[in-house]
Amino acid sequence: MLKQSQMFIPTLREVPSDAEIASHKLLVRAGLARQLASGIYSYLPLGLRVLQKIQAIVRDEMNKAGAQEMVMPAMQPAELWEKSGRWEAYGPELVRLNDRHNRPFALGPTHEEVVTTLVRDEINSYKKLPINLYQIQTKFRDEVRPRFGLIRCREFIMKDAYSFDTTQEGLDKSFQDMFNAYTNIFTRVGLNFRAVEADAGSIGGTGTYEFMALCEIGEDTIAYATEGNYAANLEKAEVVYNAAPKQDASVSAPEKIHTPGVKTIEQLTESLGVEASSIIKSLVCKVDDRIVLVLVRGDHELNDVKLKNLYDATNVDFASEAEVRAAVGAPIGFVGPLGVDGEKIDIIADNYVQDIVDGLVGANEADYHIKHVQPGRDFQVKTYTDLRNITEGDDCPRGGGKIAFARGVEVGHVFKLGTKYSEPMGATFLDENGRSKPMIMGCYGIGVSRTLAAVIEQNNDENGIIWPVSIAPYHVHVIPINSKVDEQRLAAEELTAKLTAAGIEVLYDDRLERAGVKFKDADLIGLPIRITISDKVNEGTVEVRVRRSGEAVDVHVDELISYVKEKLAVL
Amino acid sequence: MLKQSQMFIPTLREVPSDAEIASHKLLVRAGLARQLASGIYSYLPLGLRVLQKIQAIVRDEMNKAGAQEMVMPAMQPAELWEKSGRWEAYGPELVRLNDRHNRPFALGPTHEEVVTTLVRDEINSYKKLPINLYQIQTKFRDEVRPRFGLIRCREFIMKDAYSFDTTQEGLDKSFQDMFNAYTNIFTRVGLNFRAVEADAGSIGGTGTYEFMALCEIGEDTIAYATEGNYAANLEKAEVVYNAAPKQDASVSAPEKIHTPGVKTIEQLTESLGVEASSIIKSLVCKVDDRIVLVLVRGDHELNDVKLKNLYDATNVDFASEAEVRAAVGAPIGFVGPLGVDGEKIDIIADNYVQDIVDGLVGANEADYHIKHVQPGRDFQVKTYTDLRNITEGDDCPRGGGKIAFARGVEVGHVFKLGTKYSEPMGATFLDENGRSKPMIMGCYGIGVSRTLAAVIEQNNDENGIIWPVSIAPYHVHVIPINSKVDEQRLAAEELTAKLTAAGIEVLYDDRLERAGVKFKDADLIGLPIRITISDKVNEGTVEVRVRRSGEAVDVHVDELISYVKEKLAVL
Repeated sequence: MLKQSQMFIPTLREVPSDAEIASHKLLVRAGLARQLASGIYSYLPLGLRVLQKIQAIVRDEMNKAGAQEMVMPAMQPAELWEKSGRWEAYGPELVRLNDRHNRPFALGPTHEEVVTTLVRDEINSYKKLPINLYQIQTKFRDEVRPRFGLIRCREFIMKDAYSFDTTQEGLDKSFQDMFNAYTNIFTRVGLNFRAVEADAGSIGGTGTYEFMALCEIGEDTIAYATEGNYAANLEKAEVVYNAAPKQDASVSAPEKIHTPGVKTIEQLTESLGVEASSIIKSLVCKVDDRIVLVLVRGDHELNDVKLKNLYDATNVDFASEAEVRAAVGAPIGFVGPLGVDGEKIDIIADNYVQDIVDGLVGANEADYHIKHVQPGRDFQVKTYTDLRNITEGDDCPRGGGKIAFARGVEVGHVFKLGTKYSEPMGATFLDENGRSKPMIMGCYGIGVSRTLAAVIEQNNDENGIIWPVSIAPYHVHVIPINSKVDEQRLAAEELTAKLTAAGIEVLYDDRLERAGVKFKDADLIGLPIRITISDKVNEGTVEVRVRRSGEAVDVHVDELISYVKEKLAVL
Repeated sequence: MLKQSQMFIPTLREVPSDAEIASHKLLVRAGLARQLASGIYSYLPLGLRVLQKIQAIVRDEMNKAGAQEMVMPAMQPAELWEKSGRWEAYGPELVRLNDRHNRPFALGPTHEEVVTTLVRDEINSYKKLPINLYQIQTKFRDEVRPRFGLIRCREFIMKDAYSFDTTQEGLDKSFQDMFNAYTNIFTRVGLNFRAVEADAGSIGGTGTYEFMALCEIGEDTIAYATEGNYAANLEKAEVVYNAAPKQDASVSAPEKIHTPGVKTIEQLTESLGVEASSIIKSLVCKVDDRIVLVLVRGDHELNDVKLKNLYDATNVDFASEAEVRAAVGAPIGFVGPLGVDGEKIDIIADNYVQDIVDGLVGANEADYHIKHVQPGRDFQVKTYTDLRNITEGDDCPRGGGKIAFARGVEVGHVFKLGTKYSEPMGATFLDENGRSKPMIMGCYGIGVSRTLAAVIEQNNDENGIIWPVSIAPYHVHVIPINSKVDEQRLAAEELTAKLTAAGIEVLYDDRLERAGVKFKDADLIGLPIRITISDKVNEGTVEVRVRRSGEAVDVHVDELISYVKEKLAVL
C-alpha cells in the first residue's frame, strides 16, 4: 500500500519565483519535477509516473503502427554529423564535447545520422523495407533561452521515429500511419490539439505537420479555419488571392512629398491620414547573397519563409542600413520601387500589392515619400505571388470559411525527409531490378516531457492540476479527514486495499495533517477522484468527489468500487 | 502478429573482428546491439526487449523493497561536483562539457551529488526519513579502454539507488533491504552470481558488497570458500595468520653474497636454488607522501589496499627508482631491511614474514643479497599485519574450509556511504530533539546493460545464446520448415495467434529462407523453445525443441499450449 507519508511528493504552497506559466508552477508545486540547472529537470516519483504513462501510450500506438522500438546512444561521433552537414549547420544548440582522446562528439538532439548509418549498414535490399524504427530517449539541445518549465528544456525526453521506404508512395503511407498514430496518442493523453500544416522548406516534399497543443502561452500562432479541419502555421498558411476590381485607374501622377522623420507605417498613417492598406511597404531583403526589393501592403506582414521558398534560398534577412543605402541610395524608412533598376535588383511583390491604385511609397530619398503611385503604371514588378502572412478574417485556402488565430505549443512533428540524409550518408538499397537507390526517409518526433507540461497547461484551475484519467499518476486519492480516528484510518486502509485489488491506482494520504492541508494537496496533485472518509463511514458512506467538476456524492462503501469505475470510465 | 521478415533483427554468420568474448560476439551476431563508437552501442529491437525485461525485474524488486523511482538529469553542473570534491578526484573518466555560455557540466556516471542536493532541499525532518530513491538511466564514463561489448562501455544503462537514513542502524536496514533485493534480481534474471565482500576504503563503514557474475572472462578475482558462503574480492579477502612453529632458531649469521643482475624472485630462486617462501620481498612504497619499507614473503603478493587502509591513506604506489635510491641507497631489486633506520622509515611486514627463520634479502647494495637472515634477530619490524593477497588453498577467514579463486564480472554494488556526501553538501535533518544531523546515506548500483551481457556470457553454446525464460526477448520461436507450403504457413500463423492469446510471447519466422538458415538463426537468437512446423502438421503434430537441452518432442497441436507453458515454467 502506497502511503503518502512515506512517499517523496514535496508539495509547495508558494509559487516558484521563476515560473511564469501554470504548468511550470504546478509541476513544481505538486512535487512532479525540480530544476537542477537552467532547462534541466529531475522528474520526481509522481512526475515520472505520468511520464511513464505517456510513454506507454506512445509505445502502444507506435507498435500498433508497425514501428519497432530500439535505443540509440546519446553520444554521437562528430564525423557522422560532418557527413550530414549538420555539425556546422546546427550551431550552438548542439551540445558538443570531447572525449579523453580529444575526439569530438555531439549529444544527440535527434538521431537522423545514427539511424541512417545503422540502416545503411544492415539493410541493402528492398525486401527488408519498409522499416520504421523509434526510440524514447533523453535528448539534448542547448536552447539559448530555456523557459516555461518542461516546455522548453535543454535536456528533455523525446520519442523519435525514422521510416525508410523504397518509394515516395511508401513514404506517403509511412507518413500517414504516423500521422494517425500521433492523432491517437494526443487524443489518448487528453490533449486539445490540432495537426497544423507546416513549412517543409526545400526538402520536405508534400507534407509536414506539427501537432500543436492549443494553449494561450504557445509561442506559435496557428491559423485555422472557422469551418472544417484546415490549420496551418503562420509561416505556412497560404493566402488566397481574389483580385479586387480596380476602383480608379485614373489617379493623378506620382507626387513627391516632404515627410521629415516619418518612417514607419504607423507614422505615415498618422501624419498623412492615409490607410495602411494603400501604402506599399518596400523592404530591401537579403536572400542568401542576393539583394531583393520586396513589396507588401502596409497592413500586411512579409512572410519570410514564403520569400525563402520562392528563391529556394537558405537564409532570408532584412538588408543592413548600409546595404539598403547601397541598393537604393536611401535610408531605411524611405525606400520605394520607383527608379529602382529591375535588371539589377529583383522587385517582387505580394499579390495584394497589385490591387493598389493610389499608393504611397518611399521616394528613395531621405525624408521624402511619393503619393499617387500605381503599380504597373509607375513601376514594374517582376513577380506577384503570395508573400505575406495570413491574417484573421482572410478566406480559408481550402474553402473552410474564414481564418482565425490560436496559440499553440508544438508537441509533435511528422516530416518527410526524402533523401536528405540517405544520399549524403550512402543509405541505399537494391530494388527489384538490382538497381541501387537511396532510401526515402521520414522522421517523426514527440516531445514526451513537453506533452506532460502541455496537458497540465490545459488541465488546471486555481487550486491545481486536473489530470486526465489516462495519464493521472494515480486514479484515486483516499483521504481520511482525521487519521487519528481509528474507524477512519482503518476504513481508509481497507478501501485502499479493495480499490487496489480492483485494479484502481490509489494514493492513500495517511499523513497526520489537518484535513485542510490534505485537501489542498489533493487539489494541487489533481487525481481524478478523491474519496474522503469522515465520521459518516460509521454509517457506511464516504464522499466521492470528482476533481474536474467538483461534483461530490456520498456513496455507500459497498457500491464504491463500481461507482468509482463508472466515474473513471467517463472522465 | 510479429513477423520476422518485417523485423529489424540483423543476424550475422561472421564473428565481428573486434569481439574477444562470447557475449560480445553473440550480441552482435544475434542482432541485439551494434557499436556506434568505441564503448558506445545502439540497442536493436531484440536487445532492447531483453533490457526492458531486466529493467522490469529491477523495478519490481526495488519497488517491493520500498524504493521510489525517479529520473535525474544526465547533465550536471560542475559546481555540484566541486562541492563533493569529485570534480577533481574523478579524473578523465568523467565526461565533461561546456554549455553555450561556457559553464562546465559533467555527464553523470553516478548521481550522489544531484540526489543529495535534491533531498537536502526537500527534506529537513526525521519524519520524512528514511527514503530510498532510484532511477534506471543512461550513464557516462569515459573508460580508458572500453572492451568486451557491453561489459565495459562508455555509455551504459545503470540502475542507481540512494538511501537516506537518520541512524546507522537505519542505514544497516536500508542496506540489507537492497542486498536482499539484489539477490532476488540477479536470481530472477538467471545469473550465476556471488555477493562478495569488497573494500570500503576509509568511508564505507561495516559493509560493502559487489555482486559478481561468475565468468571466466571476468577481470576481477573472487576468493571464495569451498564450504559456506564466504566470498570476497582479492583486495578485501582477509588472510588468517596461523603462526608456524619456528623450525630452526639457530641459523648461521647473515652472509652477503654476490648476485650480479639477479633482481626478481624468479631469478633468485633459479640462480640460488632457494624457495620463494624463504625470500623476504622488500618493497619501497610511497604511501601518500611517506616512504615505507614493506616486507612480504617471496611467494606472496602485496595487497596495496590493505597497505592503504593501514595508513588510512589516499594513494599507495611503489617508490620510483630515485626515491628507492634516496631511501636505502640501492637500486630496485637489491633492497632489504638490514641497516634501514626504522626511526626514519617505517618497516612493516606481512604476518607471514615473521615465520621465516633463514631468509634471503637484498643487501641495499647493487648486485648483492644477504642470506641467513632472521626477522627479529637481524632487523626489527614496526608492525606485522595482514598485508598480502589471499591465495588459493589459504584458510577461509570465516571457517568455511579453504579458499578457491573464481573470476567475476561486477554487475551490482551495495555501498554504505555514511556522511561522505551529506556533510559537504549540507544534507541535514532535524531529529526528534530538534538537533541538526547529517543524513546517513547508502548507494546501490546495478549495471543493467552489463547484466544483459553477463547473462549471455553464462548462457550460450557454440550455436548461440540460450536465454533464461525470465528475460528472453520472446519465449517461443515458431518456424515452418517451408513457408511456401500453405498448410505449414497457415498452421504457423494459427499457432502463433493461439500461443500469443495464451500470453506466450512468440517470434514467428515467416521468412522465405531455407530451413537450415532459419534454424541457425533460431539457435543464434536463442529463444527458450522452438516450435518447428513440418509436414507432420497434417497429422496434427509439431516439434517442440528446448534450446538449452536440445530435447525435441513431437506434440499434438491441441496439447501445444499446455505443453509449452509447462516447459517454460521449469526452464
